[in-house]
Amino acid sequence: MKPIANTAVLAVLAALAALALGAALPAHSQVLKDFGSFHIGGRSVTLKDLPVTESVFTAGAAPTKVDPNGDYEVEQMYVQYLIPEPQKSKYPLLMWHGGGLTGTTWETKPDGKPGWMNYFFRAGHPVYVSDAVERGRASWARYPEIYTTQPIFRTKKEAWETFRFGPVGTYNTDAAKREIFPGLKFPVDKLDQFAKQSVPRWNSNDAATIAAYNALVQKVGDCVVLVHSQGGAFGFAAALAAPDKIKGLVVVEPSGAPLPGPLLDKLKDMPILILWGDNVDKSSWSRLQPVSANFTKYLQSKGGNVEFIELPKLGITGNSHMMMMDTNSDQVAGVIQDWMARKGLMR
Amino acid sequence: MKPIANTAVLAVLAALAALALGAALPAHSQVLKDFGSFHIGGRSVTLKDLPVTESVFTAGAAPTKVDPNGDYEVEQMYVQYLIPEPQKSKYPLLMWHGGGLTGTTWETKPDGKPGWMNYFFRAGHPVYVSDAVERGRASWARYPEIYTTQPIFRTKKEAWETFRFGPVGTYNTDAAKREIFPGLKFPVDKLDQFAKQSVPRWNSNDAATIAAYNALVQKVGDCVVLVHSQGGAFGFAAALAAPDKIKGLVVVEPSGAPLPGPLLDKLKDMPILILWGDNVDKSSWSRLQPVSANFTKYLQSKGGNVEFIELPKLGITGNSHMMMMDTNSDQVAGVIQDWMARKGLMR
Repeated sequence: MKPIANTAVLAVLAALAALALGAALPAHSQVLKDFGSFHIGGRSVTLKDLPVTESVFTAGAAPTKVDPNGDYEVEQMYVQYLIPEPQKSKYPLLMWHGGGLTGTTWETKPDGKPGWMNYFFRAGHPVYVSDAVERGRASWARYPEIYTTQPIFRTKKEAWETFRFGPVGTYNTDAAKREIFPGLKFPVDKLDQFAKQSVPRWNSNDAATIAAYNALVQKVGDCVVLVHSQGGAFGFAAALAAPDKIKGLVVVEPSGAPLPGPLLDKLKDMPILILWGDNVDKSSWSRLQPVSANFTKYLQSKGGNVEFIELPKLGITGNSHMMMMDTNSDQVAGVIQDWMARKGLMR
Repeated sequence: MKPIANTAVLAVLAALAALALGAALPAHSQVLKDFGSFHIGGRSVTLKDLPVTESVFTAGAAPTKVDPNGDYEVEQMYVQYLIPEPQKSKYPLLMWHGGGLTGTTWETKPDGKPGWMNYFFRAGHPVYVSDAVERGRASWARYPEIYTTQPIFRTKKEAWETFRFGPVGTYNTDAAKREIFPGLKFPVDKLDQFAKQSVPRWNSNDAATIAAYNALVQKVGDCVVLVHSQGGAFGFAAALAAPDKIKGLVVVEPSGAPLPGPLLDKLKDMPILILWGDNVDKSSWSRLQPVSANFTKYLQSKGGNVEFIELPKLGITGNSHMMMMDTNSDQVAGVIQDWMARKGLMR
């Protein structure tokens, strides 16, 4: 990629990144003011004229009739929150995961160490972690009656390539035969543990997902939104829907971005950070990165408050698409935390 | 039901329940020593010879090939933990939900008030809340290739009857036309909010579910297990598998219990509490309650440390099958908390 930030900005960022290196928060105790969860969004549907089947619920018992006809709630989203005391950020931090994943993206890492939910909670942000529509605790609905397409399950090979653990074509069932990107910071010895976090996805639920995210922003009110990968599309959509409420937007390796055009003028005053890891040019992300780069250039040309950071240009190398799980995840979180401080998003 | 506990025991329980009434914990701040999550259990599988399909991942883009053949992790379980400081219980509390539900059973209630996860955390228990195999953040696997049966989705009508909000046959799509049990403590005006917590279930995953729970007990070590409904079967199975590690077992309205016989002698020294709510005789639970009653009688006849409490006999009325979400959920939790104190499970 051609650098977008100018040299002076890069120097400042490099200095801040160096600071962040030493700023990893200790995993000490923290006062929890409140925690809990809720479901938001969705709608009631009624299914009719489906066949009644039989199912054995308890081994050895007689089959029970299962009548799928009736009323359901569908397309809701799950959100869990932890509120620290004292609160050091100005706004709650909403954390939105990527495709085929859930809120576990942000929790403990596959190597058992604390993830970004922990990091930002301990840095004083009220954290709101969601499972998007169709995933995890949000639940999912019948197809083809409610969801119009079939679910898609991610293989470890697809994870290997999409999340940039090694070059395309180098996944092997035998771990010893896999080719890993030199200096990779994702703990590939924990690939199976990471694969346990995968959930099926559909390609037909974007509208419902955006509606639930929009409802969440309206419920929480003024907030900062941190999104990853497929969540980028939802983050940009939410920002355009509520530019008054989203006070900052952090987009980690988005799968896309809105095309340049007058619609984006709404985002001119919103602090936006777009963050990319390493080895992008050696992966299918090389085709997607220019979309968010073009978004950045357009907004910058309009005086927008957007930064585009490629971690290797700060000297931070080896980060995968799952940088919140990489061994230097605290360092990368530090880059975001420093950006939030610079943008006036901390108290 | 014929009372199992004798009159003296009932008097003590009634006194303790009265104490519990005044013992609702304030929702004040608490020191959080640690929190996080992990996946446990499961296995690697490889799918072969399945057809490659095409799917459109981004609106307007060309279809992408989706090849479902490859390696997956399946049958794992998700566990989230919150560790309070100071710890006031002797052991961590493992909370296992019922059928067609997830760990959200224990979190914030559908009326937005704190649930039992909150209650027991604030009472000083390290809490470990799981999403069992196939549900929530545990994810689910392809059928019929991996799961051998079809998923089952719970209608609001089934929830209405199974969870004892009103008599069988009284659910109506129109909320104004539903017949509610007199004095019911479940907030039925939040039925839709509760229905958003429902997740599909399968009838073919019991062995994998028990294996994952057993692995969890081995990982956590000495613990107290709190189970609900279908979770009862898994709780009893885990207790029989690790009677040395499970130091107490609380079973809320189990869908079954092990049959009397010498196998149960393993459980003789384990403090066990079986808890039932109201209106059981007016529901299908009237056929299931005697199973846990017979279990209790048998163990008591062998000198076992098991109590069988029907809340109405303590003067606590109106509790549904989802008593952890009822308006008096703190009162019911207090009965459990008091039992744990009496059994020496608190520090």
